[in-house]
Amino acid sequence: MVIPSLIQHKRDGHAIAPEDWARLVRDYTAGRIPDYQMSALLMAVVFRGLEPLELAALTDAMLASGDRLRFDGFALPRADKHSTGGVGDKVSLLLAPMVASCGVAVPMMSGRGLGHTGGTLDKLESIPGFRTGLSLGEARAQVERLGCAMLGQTPEIAPADRKLYALRDVTGTVESIPLISASIMSKKLAEGLNGLVLDVKTGSGAFIPDPSRAVELARTMIALGEARGCPTVALVTAMDRPLGRACGHALEVEEAVEGLRGSGPDDLMEVTYALGCEMLLLVGAATDAVDARRRLEASISSGRALEKFGRVIEAQGGNPAVIEDPGILPQAGAVEVYRAPRSGVVSAVEPRRIGRAILELGGGRVTIEDAIDPSVGFVITVKPGDRVAKGDPVASVFARDEAGIASGLSALGEAIEIGEQGRLTPLITRRVTSRGAEVKAGAG
Amino acid sequence: MVIPSLIQHKRDGHAIAPEDWARLVRDYTAGRIPDYQMSALLMAVVFRGLEPLELAALTDAMLASGDRLRFDGFALPRADKHSTGGVGDKVSLLLAPMVASCGVAVPMMSGRGLGHTGGTLDKLESIPGFRTGLSLGEARAQVERLGCAMLGQTPEIAPADRKLYALRDVTGTVESIPLISASIMSKKLAEGLNGLVLDVKTGSGAFIPDPSRAVELARTMIALGEARGCPTVALVTAMDRPLGRACGHALEVEEAVEGLRGSGPDDLMEVTYALGCEMLLLVGAATDAVDARRRLEASISSGRALEKFGRVIEAQGGNPAVIEDPGILPQAGAVEVYRAPRSGVVSAVEPRRIGRAILELGGGRVTIEDAIDPSVGFVITVKPGDRVAKGDPVASVFARDEAGIASGLSALGEAIEIGEQGRLTPLITRRVTSRGAEVKAGAG
Repeated sequence: MVIPSLIQHKRDGHAIAPEDWARLVRDYTAGRIPDYQMSALLMAVVFRGLEPLELAALTDAMLASGDRLRFDGFALPRADKHSTGGVGDKVSLLLAPMVASCGVAVPMMSGRGLGHTGGTLDKLESIPGFRTGLSLGEARAQVERLGCAMLGQTPEIAPADRKLYALRDVTGTVESIPLISASIMSKKLAEGLNGLVLDVKTGSGAFIPDPSRAVELARTMIALGEARGCPTVALVTAMDRPLGRACGHALEVEEAVEGLRGSGPDDLMEVTYALGCEMLLLVGAATDAVDARRRLEASISSGRALEKFGRVIEAQGGNPAVIEDPGILPQAGAVEVYRAPRSGVVSAVEPRRIGRAILELGGGRVTIEDAIDPSVGFVITVKPGDRVAKGDPVASVFARDEAGIASGLSALGEAIEIGEQGRLTPLITRRVTSRGAEVKAGAG
Repeated sequence: MVIPSLIQHKRDGHAIAPEDWARLVRDYTAGRIPDYQMSALLMAVVFRGLEPLELAALTDAMLASGDRLRFDGFALPRADKHSTGGVGDKVSLLLAPMVASCGVAVPMMSGRGLGHTGGTLDKLESIPGFRTGLSLGEARAQVERLGCAMLGQTPEIAPADRKLYALRDVTGTVESIPLISASIMSKKLAEGLNGLVLDVKTGSGAFIPDPSRAVELARTMIALGEARGCPTVALVTAMDRPLGRACGHALEVEEAVEGLRGSGPDDLMEVTYALGCEMLLLVGAATDAVDARRRLEASISSGRALEKFGRVIEAQGGNPAVIEDPGILPQAGAVEVYRAPRSGVVSAVEPRRIGRAILELGGGRVTIEDAIDPSVGFVITVKPGDRVAKGDPVASVFARDEAGIASGLSALGEAIEIGEQGRLTPLITRRVTSRGAEVKAGAG
């Protein structure tokens, strides 16, 4: 295997043989291929893509580079969700305990936030004491006991992905559908799942704004999952405005708890129910969509989902009192209401601007080592299409101090556009399965 | 300057600012930018190309990374030639002394062979004692004294190019017209020239086989040269068969000496005269093409060019007796004639196959550190279009031993195709100047 020849081969638009991909990943992970050759190859993949056999070989090699969660002899079916990430997306915090309350185990492995989107791990860690760094053994034991664990990617899972992702992050090679798909699926397939639902965001605040590329990403990941015995379905959901009202780590935990109490914002609950239904159906834990929805609603009305969340928090070292008293979450030093500067119709609530503003307030990461302030953020109570009068309270800023308040208010002024007209785009636009993409234009 | 953002910018098809290119080259050469980021950027350049301002900035930064030959107060005009490389291309060995005999100084900096093409330095070093590793000071002194020096790229010349080329060589990023142009021109512009002629090869044995891409490469280099005060012209010449008859280091020196004696093969002499005429005209050392040709022919008929070659060899530590007695060159251990296996017309003499066969005989490099055997090679006396009878001697193999003879004969069987018909394509197909490309279809 001559590496420069393989790079040239991919550069010139030819496929690399599956066994060569296997060796490339193995040798790179072992340090036998230098970063400078791998980064050139990855850039060639950005331009040329991967054929299905290549993508399968790459994903399998990344999966095989590490260990996986093993549930030998465990009775419950297992399902998980992956989201491509957005602003205000706290769905995982509700979904894991809801689905686990319906008799489906959820071994949920999540990531940290980087750039303008938040990460589930960071949100969970705003709960005092909460520990996301479980070992595979701890995670398995907790899933078998409680039906749910919420952890980060352990060092044993897909080390090849970790090394490749770190390289992609600094070489401009993140934005590639096959590379994204292989990275996500090599980790999700290590969770020992019987079903996986993907929340693929589109719109201005999404990692991949373009809907047709989002569907392509969904199809690519679905094909990878299905071919490896993990039934996979994707929903394409709107990220042209934040999801729910709260944006910021502790604020989102609080909103998730509200949701588990039955008083979450409509859009947040709609996406959560839709993803939860898919999870129950994928593993056969509901007879049909109506049954699945009924079960999930019951998990909330009965208080079981909230209780489950409390138990997971407690099992992972966090203070479970948070489900009764959000006041124990980190509190912002200063809070200020933002009022509509003019009368009109909200034409946009720009999620990227909000995400960047949280970063500016100290609540995000520019590099993976940055510490974050979980208390800062926004609660935005308007959506595109809402009519407002000048002076109406439409949002709140949560900051460390008065300087943060000023910067947050100014960001809201840019993010929330008020004009003559505005329209809320549908929340869930497509359902993608291995059989095709079904348009759900009326949803939301 | 955030490197990943610059890489993404180029990847997405945007231009990098000239000052950023300058900093990229400076910081990379100083070791402040890691290889893995530079290789990803170079691969993005392979796909996206460079805009003229970017290419100019890259070339200038590479040139500025090192020293240059300075000829302050030296009266003679200076010219050089660059060839994109081919099989049997020993033009430099004749051209430098011929042009230097016509009152134009030739500070010729050449490269080593790699892959299927030979390098001028390696050919010169087959002359016992010949030293190509002159310092810039030695080279300048010799040019001022003899009008000619034939040396390798010194460590002082364009160190950025050396580091970048070493990286490109192992990352599949060599084949890019702007990167090739910047690499060549950053070195040639360091020679302090008043004129430069480019021999851009096309055809199956050329680095860039496609004629329209060859013309694009020529235009790109011409624009770079002209904008920096070095008048530049290119000839596009055929490399769908070897140039001349001899292929192999010592064999080519011997053929060059024959050429300087007035008995060189027609095609070799034709290309040499054409390039020499351009050099004389570029620096005003001839009134027109007829005058230039007459002067070059006189340099041979008078013996002055051969004598000049002898003096250059002597000045650089080589045994000048080689111009009288080629027997002092390294001699192959075994020689064997190859005879036409059937009657017919030669339809091809594949230069790549010949080049690869020289490698197989031990006369080439796979990596830059490999030692080469200068004695091995081929003398091929037929060209496409020649009619041959079965049993006619059409070539000779020069090898170390009988095993080499067998491998060489087999290579000739593959390289020399004999069929029903064949045609010699024109030798010199285009003349490219800053004013455009002139088709010279009838030439050769």
